[in-house]
Amino acid sequence: MPRNRRAASGRGSASAATARARKVRVLLMDVDGVLTDGHVYLQSFPGDVALELKAFHSHDGAGLKLARLAGLRTGIITGRESAATTRRAKENGFEFVYQGRDEKVGAYEEILRLAQATDAEVAYIADDLPDLPVLRRVGLAIAVANAVPEVKRVAHLVTRREGGNAGVREAIEFILKAQGKWLSVVPKALA
Amino acid sequence: MPRNRRAASGRGSASAATARARKVRVLLMDVDGVLTDGHVYLQSFPGDVALELKAFHSHDGAGLKLARLAGLRTGIITGRESAATTRRAKENGFEFVYQGRDEKVGAYEEILRLAQATDAEVAYIADDLPDLPVLRRVGLAIAVANAVPEVKRVAHLVTRREGGNAGVREAIEFILKAQGKWLSVVPKALA
Amino acid sequence: MPRNRRAASGRGSASAATARARKVRVLLMDVDGVLTDGHVYLQSFPGDVALELKAFHSHDGAGLKLARLAGLRTGIITGRESAATTRRAKENGFEFVYQGRDEKVGAYEEILRLAQATDAEVAYIADDLPDLPVLRRVGLAIAVANAVPEVKRVAHLVTRREGGNAGVREAIEFILKAQGKWLSVVPKALA
Amino acid sequence: MPRNRRAASGRGSASAATARARKVRVLLMDVDGVLTDGHVYLQSFPGDVALELKAFHSHDGAGLKLARLAGLRTGIITGRESAATTRRAKENGFEFVYQGRDEKVGAYEEILRLAQATDAEVAYIADDLPDLPVLRRVGLAIAVANAVPEVKRVAHLVTRREGGNAGVREAIEFILKAQGKWLSVVPKALA
Repeated sequence: MPRNRRAASGRGSASAATARARKVRVLLMDVDGVLTDGHVYLQSFPGDVALELKAFHSHDGAGLKLARLAGLRTGIITGRESAATTRRAKENGFEFVYQGRDEKVGAYEEILRLAQATDAEVAYIADDLPDLPVLRRVGLAIAVANAVPEVKRVAHLVTRREGGNAGVREAIEFILKAQGKWLSVVPKALA
Repeated sequence: MPRNRRAASGRGSASAATARARKVRVLLMDVDGVLTDGHVYLQSFPGDVALELKAFHSHDGAGLKLARLAGLRTGIITGRESAATTRRAKENGFEFVYQGRDEKVGAYEEILRLAQATDAEVAYIADDLPDLPVLRRVGLAIAVANAVPEVKRVAHLVTRREGGNAGVREAIEFILKAQGKWLSVVPKALA
Repeated sequence: MPRNRRAASGRGSASAATARARKVRVLLMDVDGVLTDGHVYLQSFPGDVALELKAFHSHDGAGLKLARLAGLRTGIITGRESAATTRRAKENGFEFVYQGRDEKVGAYEEILRLAQATDAEVAYIADDLPDLPVLRRVGLAIAVANAVPEVKRVAHLVTRREGGNAGVREAIEFILKAQGKWLSVVPKALA
Repeated sequence: MPRNRRAASGRGSASAATARARKVRVLLMDVDGVLTDGHVYLQSFPGDVALELKAFHSHDGAGLKLARLAGLRTGIITGRESAATTRRAKENGFEFVYQGRDEKVGAYEEILRLAQATDAEVAYIADDLPDLPVLRRVGLAIAVANAVPEVKRVAHLVTRREGGNAGVREAIEFILKAQGKWLSVVPKALA
């Protein structure tokens, strides 16, 4: 089955991506470039110390709440490690949190075991080369708009929005609509 | 009465939005995505602490000063809670400040009582799903340009500018011009 | 003499703006929205403290160095007050630094006295309503691309670049080229 | 040999830039405007202290890892000095780190000696006037998309991406593809 760019926007086999999305029970993603726009802010402090800052997006936060309400299990796998990511992971209710993982497949397989899920039941959202090994495994491979060409090429779905600018929210909406859960879950988010 | 997108930009019943704006005495709004562009910056500190940073806009600050000079009462209702919002609320002279309110209707009704206002006398500026219950109540429902489709659909007015990039200023200008107060209040802001 | 928008880009009397630029000895400007893009970042700290952060641009810094090398005297007049502005003012070599000035004409007239300059010898770069009283006085009134319409209307020159994104650099280049100093001062900046 | 803008995008002598790229053993670059988008963030702290923050990009980090895997020696020469740059330089594995160098040629020549390299074996990525003296020396002069005109004019290659937004990654990809190393080095980055 050929993999298509921008399946979600109607070109190529959007229906194939939809079929894949129906099976998803676990939604995993990278952090830098996916939950953020890829900028790594470093602030200088006295004593030659530099502390890291990241920019997340409120629409992704609301989207991840919808995902959990719809019964999806969610997680992150990232090569970097920071208190910022730890706090945001808590705010966003991520169940699986793997930081400092340059090699991501190990964490991915551990999540498969913990969630008792198969590759076909996992969606992964990615933007850069270190994501490729996991991206090639999962049932629904998603690239954000700002992903590098190598990542877009293997993705079943490319979002119109960029990472850190509601690309994750768009991916969640695509999955929940494919599963016929969007209309029922939105009112729950308002309650 | 049908609700129109981009009423302010001339399509659909801009005149209906203008009529609604004439009655406004109280101007309320969300914070993330409305007074900011939706980014939630988190900075890592030693001890696994992460502190939050938000980006407000100076044009909105000047606009809110004009709103107060024109006699509008102003307030915010937000699901998050932070010292950044507290400080900005003080700088912007907001009278009603409700933070940590996932469920916004309760705060909204408290403000109605305190301001002795009816739904028709309130404008609310919004960007995302948690704003919908309040948005459906108020006389003038405003969506910023970056609002999600569900919010834009129920808005009487959609600004051209985005939240955190002077969308609030544009909304204030629309209301004050509808009320015939803009030309008289601008010189006061220069005094 | 009518005042034109985008004089610098060739429409209207660019030559009039050039003639005005030739007389400039003192270059003054606002901070928020001019040396920054208007965003006021506030970071939450424990104890309900929020500290302010501003984003300046390195190209403006290099441009202000060129301005000083060309003999211009430079200064800022801003309504806000922060250590960030104080540090940047030092880095950029501003001679006149007036913070916390909601009413800007007082500071402006003090600078005129200190610099022994006339209105015609001053250029001022602006973006919002509080700048109007000074903008109407100076010989060369400059609006950055992100300025509000009221400011653009009274400007002799509107830059193509926005504040905080090298709009100040563009204004300096316009003045130094009008004065025939650009080609001689650039090599000095490299020495 | 005439120097062309946007050689990489196919206009002018892209082949000449490719020939130059084949000889590169050392990749040097400026920091502000090249590894960042040029914004200098300053945060106010009590006691009139202001600390600096810079925004780097994760795609550049991954690209610099590829450069090292491909055997390139890398370095930075910057006029400013900050703990943020020091930390990022460590994360990105830069071998040559020269901060606080307003006059960049001295640092450049020291690197030539340490790396036992000739001008023709060096690529330098730049954005503003202080980079010109080094840029005129190196075998492959690269300007990021946001560089000033004076810098673009002397560049053999102008990237499509801006500094701080993966412009450095694009330059690295250009060099490694010219050297026929890209396809072999990408899989190593995934291991």
